[in-house]
Amino acid sequence: MTRSELISLIRQRKSFLCVGLDTDSDKMPAHLQGQPDGVFQFNKAIIDATIDYAVAYKPNIAFYESMGIEGLVQLKKTMQYLQSLDKKAFTIADAKRGDIGNTSQRYARAFFDASGDFNFDAVTVAPYMGEDSVLPFMGYPDKWVILLALTSNKGAADFQFLRDAQSGKQLFECVLERAAQWGTPDNLMFVVGATKATMLSQVRAIAPRSFLLVPGVGAQGGSLEEVCRYGLTEDCGLLVNSSRGIIYASNGTDFADRAAEEAQKLQKQMSQYL
Amino acid sequence: MTRSELISLIRQRKSFLCVGLDTDSDKMPAHLQGQPDGVFQFNKAIIDATIDYAVAYKPNIAFYESMGIEGLVQLKKTMQYLQSLDKKAFTIADAKRGDIGNTSQRYARAFFDASGDFNFDAVTVAPYMGEDSVLPFMGYPDKWVILLALTSNKGAADFQFLRDAQSGKQLFECVLERAAQWGTPDNLMFVVGATKATMLSQVRAIAPRSFLLVPGVGAQGGSLEEVCRYGLTEDCGLLVNSSRGIIYASNGTDFADRAAEEAQKLQKQMSQYL
Repeated sequence: MTRSELISLIRQRKSFLCVGLDTDSDKMPAHLQGQPDGVFQFNKAIIDATIDYAVAYKPNIAFYESMGIEGLVQLKKTMQYLQSLDKKAFTIADAKRGDIGNTSQRYARAFFDASGDFNFDAVTVAPYMGEDSVLPFMGYPDKWVILLALTSNKGAADFQFLRDAQSGKQLFECVLERAAQWGTPDNLMFVVGATKATMLSQVRAIAPRSFLLVPGVGAQGGSLEEVCRYGLTEDCGLLVNSSRGIIYASNGTDFADRAAEEAQKLQKQMSQYL
Repeated sequence: MTRSELISLIRQRKSFLCVGLDTDSDKMPAHLQGQPDGVFQFNKAIIDATIDYAVAYKPNIAFYESMGIEGLVQLKKTMQYLQSLDKKAFTIADAKRGDIGNTSQRYARAFFDASGDFNFDAVTVAPYMGEDSVLPFMGYPDKWVILLALTSNKGAADFQFLRDAQSGKQLFECVLERAAQWGTPDNLMFVVGATKATMLSQVRAIAPRSFLLVPGVGAQGGSLEEVCRYGLTEDCGLLVNSSRGIIYASNGTDFADRAAEEAQKLQKQMSQYL
């Protein structure tokens, strides 16, 4: 999906909501647990219930890998279902990959290859190994790298705020600056945690046009209003993710209805900022 | 595998060689390409040919993921085969994972769970997200985190050498120091690239007892002699990886014999340093 297609989708649905498919077979409603294709059935119901209010879906790859090879079969079915729908959505593999060039090339193929099992629009990438670990993900037309800059977890403080003696910049700012030489706002987004919304203005000073994927609204405590105040651009420039708050709004048979309600609530708030 | 078991294995085989199973179905000998279980058959032949000269095997997960779900089936068979052998080996998932705590927990389960598909001894982890992204991998007895400190690729220079204004330390040194608070030399190793062997003395100043996984000997240009001069400890403290130099020593029907020769060559050199 291109940048202009993504922006159109956001305008059309009046939403910049990304639904995180962190599907945990232990937290699914009891009637789906242990069912063949239970994980896919859960995801399908969540997608059907929320697609009018969301523009993106973000399966968290760890949750599928932790179910073994069968988990990846469920992920494949989920992606095939998303791609079969008339209503389009931007798809993100939340995978935090990154390795030396010839290896990142393989990860890129795993997530992006149109003839492969998944064919995602975007993948999250960790920056620690630098340029040649990121570039191979940029070799696919209309596909995106979403590079970790400032994450929403406590451990973010361990390294991301270190201040470079030479430039006076913090590590996450160095990442934003360097990465601007590797990609463009047409193929590169950044992960910026919502738990530090005021730092979004620091991010916008370096990356004024880039889309930001913002996790941490909801369960992790971030505020949508603050994210919009500091992060919103003319083209929206935001994808705000909610996972647990939507997909586990209920663990009863009404889980899809409750997910729809939560997604609609967020979409309504979002529409006011657009 | 515990530290003392690993050290025993190193003494017994007079080797600290790790064979990187970066298995690329396009680079395998022609007679295995397109065969059912061709990737597993290739890995099995490489393992049989090299296990007298090696103490560890390191499948590079990207290579399997890039073949889709079928690639992971081949990886599972490879791991089952390794675990069925009387001759033991230390197994490393070269996966460069790392995410917020509840997600790293899932990755840890994917790679370490004894009832899961793989049951590796160790997994490589990226440090960018800090403590809570690393700790969940340490909750498994006799399993190991191998944390990226100083990688062997060109992009390493983008961030790993940034100097922290407060401590005067470079980022990779900060990673080594912080991580020493999270784990011990009994459950934590570090990746340190061989292309910068003299920097191993900087690493040893901070992590004197830790095992180091050293990629980059061979195809990437590092020297075994230099690695040993700066990195070897009383307990060895090194696992030196070679991938392409061994597994693609020949692409003919003699590939396993040639792999054995290359592994033995390295083992002989290693035995002189032990």
